[in-house]
Amino acid sequence: MIFASDNWMGASDRVAAALVEAAAGHAPAYGNDPLTAAVEASFSRVFEREVATFFVATGTAANALSLAQFAKPGGVVFCHRDAHIAVDECGAPEFFGGGSRLHRIDGAGGKLLPADLAAAISAYPAEALHHGQPAAVSISQLTEAGTAYTPAEIAEIAAVAHGAGLPLHMDGARFGNAVAGLGVSPAEASWRSGVDVLSFGGSKNGCFAAEAVVFFDPGKARGFEFHRKRAGQLFSKSRFVSAQFAAYLDGDHWLDMAAHANAMAQRLADGLVAAGSAVPLRPLGNEIFATLSKAADGRLRAAGASYYEWPPAGLIAAPLDNDTIFVRLVTSFRTDEADVERFVQIVSAVDA
Amino acid sequence: MIFASDNWMGASDRVAAALVEAAAGHAPAYGNDPLTAAVEASFSRVFEREVATFFVATGTAANALSLAQFAKPGGVVFCHRDAHIAVDECGAPEFFGGGSRLHRIDGAGGKLLPADLAAAISAYPAEALHHGQPAAVSISQLTEAGTAYTPAEIAEIAAVAHGAGLPLHMDGARFGNAVAGLGVSPAEASWRSGVDVLSFGGSKNGCFAAEAVVFFDPGKARGFEFHRKRAGQLFSKSRFVSAQFAAYLDGDHWLDMAAHANAMAQRLADGLVAAGSAVPLRPLGNEIFATLSKAADGRLRAAGASYYEWPPAGLIAAPLDNDTIFVRLVTSFRTDEADVERFVQIVSAVDA
Amino acid sequence: MIFASDNWMGASDRVAAALVEAAAGHAPAYGNDPLTAAVEASFSRVFEREVATFFVATGTAANALSLAQFAKPGGVVFCHRDAHIAVDECGAPEFFGGGSRLHRIDGAGGKLLPADLAAAISAYPAEALHHGQPAAVSISQLTEAGTAYTPAEIAEIAAVAHGAGLPLHMDGARFGNAVAGLGVSPAEASWRSGVDVLSFGGSKNGCFAAEAVVFFDPGKARGFEFHRKRAGQLFSKSRFVSAQFAAYLDGDHWLDMAAHANAMAQRLADGLVAAGSAVPLRPLGNEIFATLSKAADGRLRAAGASYYEWPPAGLIAAPLDNDTIFVRLVTSFRTDEADVERFVQIVSAVDA
Amino acid sequence: MIFASDNWMGASDRVAAALVEAAAGHAPAYGNDPLTAAVEASFSRVFEREVATFFVATGTAANALSLAQFAKPGGVVFCHRDAHIAVDECGAPEFFGGGSRLHRIDGAGGKLLPADLAAAISAYPAEALHHGQPAAVSISQLTEAGTAYTPAEIAEIAAVAHGAGLPLHMDGARFGNAVAGLGVSPAEASWRSGVDVLSFGGSKNGCFAAEAVVFFDPGKARGFEFHRKRAGQLFSKSRFVSAQFAAYLDGDHWLDMAAHANAMAQRLADGLVAAGSAVPLRPLGNEIFATLSKAADGRLRAAGASYYEWPPAGLIAAPLDNDTIFVRLVTSFRTDEADVERFVQIVSAVDA
Repeated sequence: MIFASDNWMGASDRVAAALVEAAAGHAPAYGNDPLTAAVEASFSRVFEREVATFFVATGTAANALSLAQFAKPGGVVFCHRDAHIAVDECGAPEFFGGGSRLHRIDGAGGKLLPADLAAAISAYPAEALHHGQPAAVSISQLTEAGTAYTPAEIAEIAAVAHGAGLPLHMDGARFGNAVAGLGVSPAEASWRSGVDVLSFGGSKNGCFAAEAVVFFDPGKARGFEFHRKRAGQLFSKSRFVSAQFAAYLDGDHWLDMAAHANAMAQRLADGLVAAGSAVPLRPLGNEIFATLSKAADGRLRAAGASYYEWPPAGLIAAPLDNDTIFVRLVTSFRTDEADVERFVQIVSAVDA
Repeated sequence: MIFASDNWMGASDRVAAALVEAAAGHAPAYGNDPLTAAVEASFSRVFEREVATFFVATGTAANALSLAQFAKPGGVVFCHRDAHIAVDECGAPEFFGGGSRLHRIDGAGGKLLPADLAAAISAYPAEALHHGQPAAVSISQLTEAGTAYTPAEIAEIAAVAHGAGLPLHMDGARFGNAVAGLGVSPAEASWRSGVDVLSFGGSKNGCFAAEAVVFFDPGKARGFEFHRKRAGQLFSKSRFVSAQFAAYLDGDHWLDMAAHANAMAQRLADGLVAAGSAVPLRPLGNEIFATLSKAADGRLRAAGASYYEWPPAGLIAAPLDNDTIFVRLVTSFRTDEADVERFVQIVSAVDA
Repeated sequence: MIFASDNWMGASDRVAAALVEAAAGHAPAYGNDPLTAAVEASFSRVFEREVATFFVATGTAANALSLAQFAKPGGVVFCHRDAHIAVDECGAPEFFGGGSRLHRIDGAGGKLLPADLAAAISAYPAEALHHGQPAAVSISQLTEAGTAYTPAEIAEIAAVAHGAGLPLHMDGARFGNAVAGLGVSPAEASWRSGVDVLSFGGSKNGCFAAEAVVFFDPGKARGFEFHRKRAGQLFSKSRFVSAQFAAYLDGDHWLDMAAHANAMAQRLADGLVAAGSAVPLRPLGNEIFATLSKAADGRLRAAGASYYEWPPAGLIAAPLDNDTIFVRLVTSFRTDEADVERFVQIVSAVDA
Repeated sequence: MIFASDNWMGASDRVAAALVEAAAGHAPAYGNDPLTAAVEASFSRVFEREVATFFVATGTAANALSLAQFAKPGGVVFCHRDAHIAVDECGAPEFFGGGSRLHRIDGAGGKLLPADLAAAISAYPAEALHHGQPAAVSISQLTEAGTAYTPAEIAEIAAVAHGAGLPLHMDGARFGNAVAGLGVSPAEASWRSGVDVLSFGGSKNGCFAAEAVVFFDPGKARGFEFHRKRAGQLFSKSRFVSAQFAAYLDGDHWLDMAAHANAMAQRLADGLVAAGSAVPLRPLGNEIFATLSKAADGRLRAAGASYYEWPPAGLIAAPLDNDTIFVRLVTSFRTDEADVERFVQIVSAVDA
């Protein structure tokens, strides 16, 4: 019953097999190999336009380097208060941006609202040198609250960003879960809605370590290869990332894995609600936030379940009573349905 | 006949198998898993003392972050003119050091001489604020010329560095080849000779992507985990690097692979000399620099051999005649003896 | 009637005379001159202990370099929401800190409360690598709301900072006004209350351009000279800053000028309150925030008065009615008492 | 007999008077004052085209920020081996460029040769990501050897730089001496010969502290104001720099001062040659490099003369004998002709 995080999971069999197959051969280093070229082409196919794709080692690197491409002196990046870039990346976006500032904006359900974004940007008028200058907007998809922006919502944010001359970055660590959950195409979930650059995550959804930065206008990627190399993010055996992505993208394997994770989250949410838990945000992807009685928590821990307690702030309105805790549960491509059933059963057993 | 680079090769079967095995399970993320702990302990065993080990994505990251740990404002890192950090890392050491300068020093056979190092350091006297301040010394093992420092040579350099209050970093992208070639222990090749921090490379010698920064005094590693995370170099599924290193270190697999590569280089060098090539530096590891007639080059290319032409400057004294080129040949854990024989045969066939 | 800012004013006659006198002679460059040595000694005398003093060009440089001395990878600096470093320095603290983050904390009257500071620091527990690591605490004296911390208040904040192993920085752009207003010694207002490093401002209080970084423990200043030089902040004719400070400190000229400015602010505040303005924070230094009727504003502008409208948020509780604006008024060493009287008279004339 | 450096001198009477005059008044801060606007216009007049001018605190800041405007990840700046930016700025150009590298090129008489520059640039071909990417070319005028590039020489270097898509920066710490010495217009010595951005120095030639960055194409200065502010280089009382430059530029005061310094250097050189010293490079500006007998050196020091011994490497071909030293002598706007005569007399007295 592993619900701690999707990055606790291993890699999918197909991804592992692709890696082993690639291990046997040889090829030019630093991405100058046929497999890397083929996978880069796959990205263009997946997104239905020519894109510029760059593999990097981690999601933090993908985010920080995406934003570094648009850095300015005194530059300000606008994001949600709880954005991964603002909370969980140890200052990487600031560092790679040469001292960028992250302007954090409140927003219910993990989402930025266009009006709040516009107000934040307007605090940096062009003539007010001393405050710094707007550089980029970044949103997460899935959000840190497990929700997803609809294409229409993204488009509204993109309109504000572009109206201020700013590029829109999307942290897509769980982009697959969002696409599968929304039931839209990868293109609709990104550039067709105004996203300029995407951190495309594979590691949480069945890869070993496979992350990519995808620029939807290759012209905006000019010089990015230097950012990547200077960051120590260009693998010499780059094709081992390519091999993972090859299997990941092939036959929509990535979307199938994401859909499975999402379905497990739905079932878990349904079961928990039925068992009396509050699940404030209906899950669209593979993350659930829920209340648990301390008794249920004790039984679950005893049974070996893993998951994290989570700060409820911003996710539920009412304060918790003393017998209740708030937790985050994350499903994955490999979550076993039986584990979900067992988890729910343990929660409902006595409490119900 | 792949002699272009050791990083053109895939991964060893044992490394690949370890990765696949790890892919099936699950474990806490970000290195907080039992396998990572076990592999970190293995590093202490390999080096015969308690060391602090940090996995990173690439050799460039290992080097740049090692040096960043000792960065100072206006800091200067002393290295050989041809050092990988100075030539092939796109300014990563300068970037991660907040604007460090690399002071490049000439030296025959790819090696720094202690007296030249001392002279270079003395150009930055403590009172001469304007020139900057010495921060660290870095050497490569194998060197960029394919040679290796003996423990005694390292100790002499370390004495100069430490005498000036500077740490000694070793770029060990091919550390295994050096250890196997020198026939000394990993400890003798590093901290017993005065090395303070080592970039320990696995990717060129049988891993997919496995590099580590090893601090021989864990006290000097304080805060390094923030450098790594901020650099986007902390893998969420860190145990997949651990799995590679587990197989790599187990039963001295790494040294066996390196010894094979070295032996192949020896055989290749012997054969080429017999065939009339000049091989100015007797190979100790897995890199050879040699002259080839243009005719032999033509025959080799026609037969599908891969290798790089290389600037002879600093490696051979006499200028090349018009019918001769200079090349670098790199063997690997997977180099086939038959390929070596065939390569030599093609060279000698007509020229001899 | 110049109340726009104290940095709109020229330089005091004594400061100007000292500069002219120094202009005639010659002396070694880069601060290696007798006058600079003498003025550095004066700082130790003023603060009643041996201090390490470094002249820089601007207050932004003083703040940013003070904090850079304590920078860490992923480092976080805690400050008030409205701190000058966070609002008006175009990201200089982030830049010089290699990507530092400023964690902004709310606080009434421009002041940090110790409990809020402690809570903010506790969000970065030692084991939570991903969030970053605390690096320093910074407070402003005068605060951005024109108030001043008492020595006891500073000591409480210092206790929290030091308890967390963090140095306490004070942005003393208006330190003279604070010292004069509090009626305490410079030592009490700084290191005796726990301040570790002070940005000591002269430019706003009668100098041309004279700012200094003062470390109260010279041991903590080690290497700072490299920070300054690398920042392009070491004047070749450093003694021209020294000359300003010599006159500034001589015979407590700085405190006399500050006391005059403060007295003018008091008189202005008294007059405005009598005339019906709300002055929410009783001025201790030379800044006043006050309401004005739009009619009075019109009359003042017509009479050539200069001052800035100011966002009332955080300074007054009740919302303004449509006929009222909120303004900041700053007095200086050169504010003419007659101007104050005239300003008040114009406000009260009709409104009263 | 002050020949140690031109920055040992005070300020000219006219510059000092202008500063004092400005000290009396008041004006908006941060350069938004009429005097600053007028002086910026003067720069356009001096250079016979519309330029974008930015005042900064020091020459190091002017150079580092000029180059920061053109920084790239992995960026390389090409300069002479002895360039001030490479030797005497404590890594400021590297720091402000986010880790730029300075590629130092040998050249006789302190000058870069176009062919050597072209060769250096060609070591960074567009496809060789790992080496980094060319970002800018920087030359010094006067050079560090006291020589000056002719407009034709500058144009040749500019052709190479522009041919490679690189801007040409000129470190004009002694630009006035160069212009006066060459007998050309400021425009000819800069943009008409292909210079894109100039560090225009006033501090060494009669100002207190007045340095400017001048962009000859204002379009290339876009965003530079953020670089300056973020660097802590925007003076709040900016008009005090403006006041210095106003007097400095007025009636070609700067060129008169420079011409005086140059003439003194000529006379000194003539006298020294007559007295038996070797003066390898005929001075065009205000710097002389010369041999002195140790006996003469002793007599001069006894008489209170100040000057620096200097490394002869690169400036004279033959090694010095044991009785001879090599020195640098710098004249200034305030050098007294009597001092020059006396200096020469002391040298020639006994040796002759």
